[in-house]
Amino acid sequence: MEAGPPGSSRPAEPGPCLSGQRGADHTASASPQSVAGTELGRHPQAVAAVLPAGGCGERMGVPTPKQFCPILERPLISYTLQALERVCWIKDIVVAVTGENMEVMKSIIQKYQHKRISLVKAGVTRHRSIFNGLKALAEDQINSKLSKPEVVIIHDAVRPFVEEGVLLKVVTAAKEHGCSDYDLEFGTECLQLALKYCCTKAKLVEGSPDLWKVTYKRDLYAAESIIKERISQEICVVMDTEEDNKHVGHLLEEVLKSELNHVKVTSEALGHAGRHLLQIILDQCYNFVCVNVTTSDFQETQKLLSMLEESNLCILYPVVVVSVHFLDFKLVPPSQKMENLMQIREFAKEVKERNILLYGLLICYSQDDQKLQESLRQGAIIIASLIKERNCGLIGQLLIA
Amino acid sequence: MEAGPPGSSRPAEPGPCLSGQRGADHTASASPQSVAGTELGRHPQAVAAVLPAGGCGERMGVPTPKQFCPILERPLISYTLQALERVCWIKDIVVAVTGENMEVMKSIIQKYQHKRISLVKAGVTRHRSIFNGLKALAEDQINSKLSKPEVVIIHDAVRPFVEEGVLLKVVTAAKEHGCSDYDLEFGTECLQLALKYCCTKAKLVEGSPDLWKVTYKRDLYAAESIIKERISQEICVVMDTEEDNKHVGHLLEEVLKSELNHVKVTSEALGHAGRHLLQIILDQCYNFVCVNVTTSDFQETQKLLSMLEESNLCILYPVVVVSVHFLDFKLVPPSQKMENLMQIREFAKEVKERNILLYGLLICYSQDDQKLQESLRQGAIIIASLIKERNCGLIGQLLIA
Repeated sequence: MEAGPPGSSRPAEPGPCLSGQRGADHTASASPQSVAGTELGRHPQAVAAVLPAGGCGERMGVPTPKQFCPILERPLISYTLQALERVCWIKDIVVAVTGENMEVMKSIIQKYQHKRISLVKAGVTRHRSIFNGLKALAEDQINSKLSKPEVVIIHDAVRPFVEEGVLLKVVTAAKEHGCSDYDLEFGTECLQLALKYCCTKAKLVEGSPDLWKVTYKRDLYAAESIIKERISQEICVVMDTEEDNKHVGHLLEEVLKSELNHVKVTSEALGHAGRHLLQIILDQCYNFVCVNVTTSDFQETQKLLSMLEESNLCILYPVVVVSVHFLDFKLVPPSQKMENLMQIREFAKEVKERNILLYGLLICYSQDDQKLQESLRQGAIIIASLIKERNCGLIGQLLIA
Repeated sequence: MEAGPPGSSRPAEPGPCLSGQRGADHTASASPQSVAGTELGRHPQAVAAVLPAGGCGERMGVPTPKQFCPILERPLISYTLQALERVCWIKDIVVAVTGENMEVMKSIIQKYQHKRISLVKAGVTRHRSIFNGLKALAEDQINSKLSKPEVVIIHDAVRPFVEEGVLLKVVTAAKEHGCSDYDLEFGTECLQLALKYCCTKAKLVEGSPDLWKVTYKRDLYAAESIIKERISQEICVVMDTEEDNKHVGHLLEEVLKSELNHVKVTSEALGHAGRHLLQIILDQCYNFVCVNVTTSDFQETQKLLSMLEESNLCILYPVVVVSVHFLDFKLVPPSQKMENLMQIREFAKEVKERNILLYGLLICYSQDDQKLQESLRQGAIIIASLIKERNCGLIGQLLIA
């Protein structure tokens, strides 16, 4: 059987599956797995992955094994699982963890709703761990959920940025080339294990720069910055109406567009029963700027927060919500408005529990067009900062532009 | 001649030279170069460094050559120069840059007050650039400031974290071992050039993990995080008096100590003509929490800002100043106090020009001890966030704990 080209041009970059695939109670979207099943019809029917994750990460210089080190409060291994899960033709993912980390791993799988994962006990060496994973796949146990695969991908738990294209290359090469003496001599040692215990073919394949391994503490820093950058590519400005072009929300949208290069800025109304907004949430936008105009205080922001809390968007990444309030400082001193707005601190504490980072932003509304533009520009800089940093220590603060 | 052990246990990590060495008008501290001259008496008398910096950085995926990419608004190459400059026994540093970047490089040397630097034109290849650097050192030109060195260190402009120990190993090995066939075969190619054109000995020496090269964009991210971490190791709490143990400044200091692990928290009074505080500034503390109690508004913060502006501390790294104000929210609503404190926005804009990041922090002062502790703890979290991120977009904001 020959493997075909990638069925989808969408890279398997970190980002959760659609909630249709992830959440049990949501059925609005088609299951990507069945769609992909048609597109990827020529892919091998039986691919599994084994992740040795029994290491202790002594080079990291931190007490936590590196696969469990948190990035944006989520363990590194969860990002790797997410990257593999997005590849629908990988049927089973077997993770080898030490006995003492078994419960931690189970709670990670539950908390981040990972699917198609089986756990086996890690061995004393990396080879033994891979062996245990392969054995679990090879055995035809009656109660096993696992099916014997044709190809097994062995993937480091600490390479979170693996893309579907590379995985496909691996699988294709394994099927086309078999394994040469060269691989056995110079390839990574686990090829030999794969050959010996799983009756599959294997071949050393070139990776991409993204496939790099988190080894040192500096790699954790880099991974965090890359992840932050990836989830900061889109901002949705939410307002009560889309009709009025002179709406301050639209003015802010325009300034955001001109100030923030490389960021997609869209706007959406809360009004229409939130149909479009729901789609934006489903499409995994992680940044919202909610403009409160017609209602006093936080009514619009609260509507948005409810929608976000009902969705599964916040499971994998912290979602930033900036609650924007316009005020003519000449008519009303900001202090007066702030009195009311201070309740944002309580909201922020509440929604932090659901992985939502809420900040307040008071923009000076001036009749003078130039002054208004300056305030909007300042507001855009603050919004960009909040989205870029995702700083938990500053939630509930009321910033002034 | 045999090279001795490192003369100083202090690593040559990024951090500016003392201002005695750096600023022309400051003579209070002894010149580190003359002190080190005694300690490092057994070091080779004539060591120079050549930095090929003519690359275009195509793997970085950004238009700016990587050696000029900014980290905390300062170009990467300046960090590398700083690391070499701190090693007092390196007498000359020759940088090879392309003609089109010559002016940029000159302005970097001027802005960050680098010393002992000479510029030569880069060649079309890395080898040619090294050749040009070595030639400048080898020539006995009448007008040349350069002296012919015994040993030349060839160092990538994009390895900013080189430590004195590694450089010493390189020099020692070069003098002790000469160059073997093994080096010529497997070592980096520039060994051959060094041998051929500089009449010196050379040897491949093992580096440290810190010596890594900034190649990809992710390396820039990692470098930025490492630098931020390094300059966030110490916080100085500045207040009007040191006598009163019940002073809110001391309470805040205690909470900072208990909340922030791995950070050294000290306190200092502004009062005593600022003598001690001046020493803390000279010792390169980059983070200040200024408690305003006896005076209204910003008098104490302004005194501190003046001291910082007069020092050379801010030349190499952005310095964080958090202006703290205590207020009993029950007696005075925060809004009333805020009216006055809003002028911090103007101060912040001004001092940003001098590389000082100023933020305001209003801490709720309560007679209830438990409530006060909670506010102080919240304040400590905010201070930690501000210091960790060094976010330019949020300067001049008044945060509430």
